Amino acid sequence: MAIPRNFRAWRHCAPPGTLSRNFSNTSRNFSNTIRAFAAAASPPSKAVVYEQHGSPDQVVRVVDLPPVEIKENDVCVRMMASPINPSDINRMEGVYPVRPQVPAVAGYEGVGEVHSLGSAVSNLEVGDWVIPSPPSFGTWQTYIVKEENAWHKISKGIPMEYAATITVNPLTALCMLENFVELTSGDAIVQNGATSIVGQCIIQLAKIKGVSSINIIRDRPGSEEVQEKTKKLGADLLYTESQLSAKNFKSLLGDIPEPLLGFNCIGGDSASLVLKFLRLGGTMVTYGGMAKKPVTVSTSSFIFKDIALRGFWLQKLMTSDRTMVCRPKIDYLLRLVQDGKLKYEMELVPFSDFNIALDKAMGKLGSQPKQVIRF
Amino acid sequence: MAIPRNFRAWRHCAPPGTLSRNFSNTSRNFSNTIRAFAAAASPPSKAVVYEQHGSPDQVVRVVDLPPVEIKENDVCVRMMASPINPSDINRMEGVYPVRPQVPAVAGYEGVGEVHSLGSAVSNLEVGDWVIPSPPSFGTWQTYIVKEENAWHKISKGIPMEYAATITVNPLTALCMLENFVELTSGDAIVQNGATSIVGQCIIQLAKIKGVSSINIIRDRPGSEEVQEKTKKLGADLLYTESQLSAKNFKSLLGDIPEPLLGFNCIGGDSASLVLKFLRLGGTMVTYGGMAKKPVTVSTSSFIFKDIALRGFWLQKLMTSDRTMVCRPKIDYLLRLVQDGKLKYEMELVPFSDFNIALDKAMGKLGSQPKQVIRF
Repeated sequence: MAIPRNFRAWRHCAPPGTLSRNFSNTSRNFSNTIRAFAAAASPPSKAVVYEQHGSPDQVVRVVDLPPVEIKENDVCVRMMASPINPSDINRMEGVYPVRPQVPAVAGYEGVGEVHSLGSAVSNLEVGDWVIPSPPSFGTWQTYIVKEENAWHKISKGIPMEYAATITVNPLTALCMLENFVELTSGDAIVQNGATSIVGQCIIQLAKIKGVSSINIIRDRPGSEEVQEKTKKLGADLLYTESQLSAKNFKSLLGDIPEPLLGFNCIGGDSASLVLKFLRLGGTMVTYGGMAKKPVTVSTSSFIFKDIALRGFWLQKLMTSDRTMVCRPKIDYLLRLVQDGKLKYEMELVPFSDFNIALDKAMGKLGSQPKQVIRF
Repeated sequence: MAIPRNFRAWRHCAPPGTLSRNFSNTSRNFSNTIRAFAAAASPPSKAVVYEQHGSPDQVVRVVDLPPVEIKENDVCVRMMASPINPSDINRMEGVYPVRPQVPAVAGYEGVGEVHSLGSAVSNLEVGDWVIPSPPSFGTWQTYIVKEENAWHKISKGIPMEYAATITVNPLTALCMLENFVELTSGDAIVQNGATSIVGQCIIQLAKIKGVSSINIIRDRPGSEEVQEKTKKLGADLLYTESQLSAKNFKSLLGDIPEPLLGFNCIGGDSASLVLKFLRLGGTMVTYGGMAKKPVTVSTSSFIFKDIALRGFWLQKLMTSDRTMVCRPKIDYLLRLVQDGKLKYEMELVPFSDFNIALDKAMGKLGSQPKQVIRF
């Protein structure tokens, strides 16, 4: 079995107290061998790993990994922060189309500080802030060693929770706004799931481009407060799903043009609401399916309204040859954060409280802001 | 009310015996005035008209239209043949998105022979065979006067029923094969409704391009005979819908690659079968909805299988600036007909039997070949 590089020589240690539930003390699958390194090596790394797929709170354990050799082109990074994204949960559950081979370190994005360098590294220095770009598996650990070109240097003036989360949600929002349809100032977009972080980013990024946003949110207790918050981000129009039943959609638009582009992360009837707003020849991009219901489209929408339906998956984009195209986009997004033009709610949680953060991210404690682990 | 040019001065006459049912003798909406023409004029035209939308056998009547002035850039064409397409029925019913203004002459495509010319016409001669290109309303009549650039000269060596029908079904098939995805020899397509004329054309045109076709047909009495016929046209694989239930689709393909492009003219479950065959990143084009059921697509098809859904409507293409791009395509299709490489079943019917042809086209007499009126 091929084992990820960081697993070549790891040793299992008892997890800290707060993380001890559900963890067994067996060290099956782990080798006790420690390689003797000729070259420099990383510090030992404390990592969230899973040896089998399943409910994350059942399968993860925090282990100490032994030092890893730092080759001449390698950079050793001390991770500072990494979020718990829904896709991280899905990967651990084994329900994601790309199933990481187990045992695996969890996590997919994050930010860290350069700790030490291989002899041939020329563009990074100790102390630089870097993010894995493209994002890649195994960011929930304290030290990571990867080749120089896997790291993208970023400015240090950015709150670490934003740097840690910029490559999944905000980049999804930006790529979806730019990759499907050429939007120009004065155009409009429509989306459901407008209160998600991607949704919040879409509102703000559209506004910056001079593009109006029509936003649809689900009917839930406290939706007035959510509406108020979302409007403050720059949402031009905002409706709950029930407010849209049996409405003449065009009459709701006022001065806003019919949208050329729509985003769907819900599915079912909510996707149909997005389609109803779209103009002739419009495109709807599906990037999620929170309602776990399919998208249903009439024949006439395709033929006479010339609607195009597409899908977006960041991970596919990231594994294609377009990775490098994304770095300037990431820089752009981080500048917006620095300038106070891109905001979303997060909660920084110390690594020792990882299990609480995981429970929150899994929805066990009601609606919670995005959890970002601080190592 | 704006009245189509050919209606400026028409007079109502009693329809021929075979067409008299359901026709009233009132001449409301018709002007009895005959204009005095300074210039040359067309012969009187016998035309199938409708004064209101409704069931075609209830609303159409055959009338004599008076001569029409032939201006210097005009060409008067004696129509030879014109088909009854399903979209003609829909237009008369008033259920088509573009509702022709009534009173209107029915029909949308056809072929005719140049009868007389305006003084400034330079590229056509009396006796030339021409088709309206783009196709346009009002082809079910014996004489039509339109400007020279509305006519496309074609070879005389083509059976008139093919010339009369080339601009709707075969052109739809060709445009759908060429406009969405770049297919190369060795690729494959998948379609439902494979026994329709568009479906038959897709099979043959794909074969000529070296592209394999996977064909899905509905379960109906006599489907063995239909399968035999369709295979003779060049269908590489052919399945009834029931043969595909709970199948491993990839195992059915044998040496044929997963298709990059799919065509759907049915909707509902049949559209889902097309989607299941498509490869990662494939595109399905919807051009009809015979089952009157919507297309339903899972979220994961969009995100993880990267499926794109589009629609095709020839009439939209025809009213865009791409009209002239279509004429070389029409010439190509007519050459294939001449070379015996493009075939489909039709029935030529004399104009005097129009009502029988209409009943057949409306499905009153069971499954019938496409009806083509011979004027």
